[in-house]
Amino acid sequence: MTRGGRRPYDGVVMTTPVTVPYARYSIESAHWWIGRALAALLAASGLDRTDLDGFSLASFTVGPDTAIGLTQHFRLSPRWLDHVPMGGEHTGTHFDAPIHWVTGRHLPDNAVDTLPTRHMVAPACVIDCAAEAAADADFLLTVAHVEAWEKTNGRIDAGAWVLLRTDWAKRTGRAFANLGDDGPHTPGPDAEVMRWLVAERGILGFGTETIGTDAGQAAHFTPPYPAHHYLHGAGRYGLQCLANLDRLPPRGAVIIAAPLKILQGSGSPLRILALVGPKVALHSQDAGKTSGTST
Amino acid sequence: MTRGGRRPYDGVVMTTPVTVPYARYSIESAHWWIGRALAALLAASGLDRTDLDGFSLASFTVGPDTAIGLTQHFRLSPRWLDHVPMGGEHTGTHFDAPIHWVTGRHLPDNAVDTLPTRHMVAPACVIDCAAEAAADADFLLTVAHVEAWEKTNGRIDAGAWVLLRTDWAKRTGRAFANLGDDGPHTPGPDAEVMRWLVAERGILGFGTETIGTDAGQAAHFTPPYPAHHYLHGAGRYGLQCLANLDRLPPRGAVIIAAPLKILQGSGSPLRILALVGPKVALHSQDAGKTSGTST
Repeated sequence: MTRGGRRPYDGVVMTTPVTVPYARYSIESAHWWIGRALAALLAASGLDRTDLDGFSLASFTVGPDTAIGLTQHFRLSPRWLDHVPMGGEHTGTHFDAPIHWVTGRHLPDNAVDTLPTRHMVAPACVIDCAAEAAADADFLLTVAHVEAWEKTNGRIDAGAWVLLRTDWAKRTGRAFANLGDDGPHTPGPDAEVMRWLVAERGILGFGTETIGTDAGQAAHFTPPYPAHHYLHGAGRYGLQCLANLDRLPPRGAVIIAAPLKILQGSGSPLRILALVGPKVALHSQDAGKTSGTST
Repeated sequence: MTRGGRRPYDGVVMTTPVTVPYARYSIESAHWWIGRALAALLAASGLDRTDLDGFSLASFTVGPDTAIGLTQHFRLSPRWLDHVPMGGEHTGTHFDAPIHWVTGRHLPDNAVDTLPTRHMVAPACVIDCAAEAAADADFLLTVAHVEAWEKTNGRIDAGAWVLLRTDWAKRTGRAFANLGDDGPHTPGPDAEVMRWLVAERGILGFGTETIGTDAGQAAHFTPPYPAHHYLHGAGRYGLQCLANLDRLPPRGAVIIAAPLKILQGSGSPLRILALVGPKVALHSQDAGKTSGTST
């Protein structure tokens, strides 16, 4: 588990950027249809939102800085706080399992509750295309780009995550989805590089900073959505809405990506960690030098 | 990061047992009130469930083997599958942040989106009370038990998780919550041991196999729910509904517990990993010996 003398577990970097938003106590902000419907239902029922056996429906809202975040807020008691965040399996920073796509729907162990635990800890190869993506929102990664990366960094490991750095996570608001009348314009892989990474390099999966592992215009590719098509058809995985990829080395980081155990789940929001060395010592086991406080 | 010659990262064991259940395409199984309400609403609206702009409401259901799992199922497209699992921040195997409890509500960095990343990777001290819990469902961990554990295993590390093994995760159905007319009967810590573990040992947090870090009858303790009271009041954390603690050594395992990044979230369901050595080599970085397939 070492490469070039590095101890890959010596530091921890967060690669999950997305904060799932909600608005507290703003029933007025319930502007999604289920939110409106439930609000109407509550009103029609004569129930006050403080009367629901301790459950207080506060709001449904779509956050301002994510197109897919949707949460609901409950309070249970004066003694404790509990929310019910609502979102799909593919909300925010998330993991795609093979069953997510039609090409992987019949594979064994194809859902987040059945995929092998050992796949949740894997090395990462990070390909920096930030400059290219800044110059062209529709930038496409090709086999030639990966081969150039391999000349400098060595062959991509079988079983590794390939992560496409575009600095897209630094965009906010409308610039993130970057929608035009013809759909989103965001960088991603072309079809051939996805076929090649899966078939010729045996990668574990592919991760991006954008919404989806595919480019914004990938519905028009052959096959449509080639990252999803090839990855999931071969039992491999996807990661989306990553951040802080600029803090990872081209290789040597280890990704911990453990999706929630949802029965036959097609994916999951998750908190991804990257272990990189050798800067920050993992705390404790050096008794007395560290503490468990939240400071 | 080694202890007694062990390499703690050499193997991966899953410590998250709970599968969030749902029933596919069984609108008839919608027996929770929101489920019923939405089904009625859909019927009244004249909308067919296939007509909702690609969204198909399939079911709300409470699963047979968990009291708190609740999910909703959508399908989006013939090409892909997506669900919207519904559950609170404290559903299934989950993490408690300080803001969850009244005693921790004003602490800095007290929510899952602000707590330090370095706390997401920490060593574990596992205290085996399976025999005691089998003999007495209301078994309470005391300072004396922990001191006896320390005589054999050494002093509990500052910054470590203390995990209470009770084999409760092996129970199913009603035996898991073990409800009586006077509330749940499940094992947990007494008040003094929680004060002591936080103040005298500086633990990072406390984890159990049961619903909640506190014993089933802890509402009657002084203070009520002492694990929540002391842990969160000091900025420490909780883990609940753990499983497979019988696969962890008394010390030497490293816990990876990374909650979802929910804005000001009081907790989060999560997939917890334990790294234990030295049995299973982490895959890859031995190029060619491993693959990324899901077999």
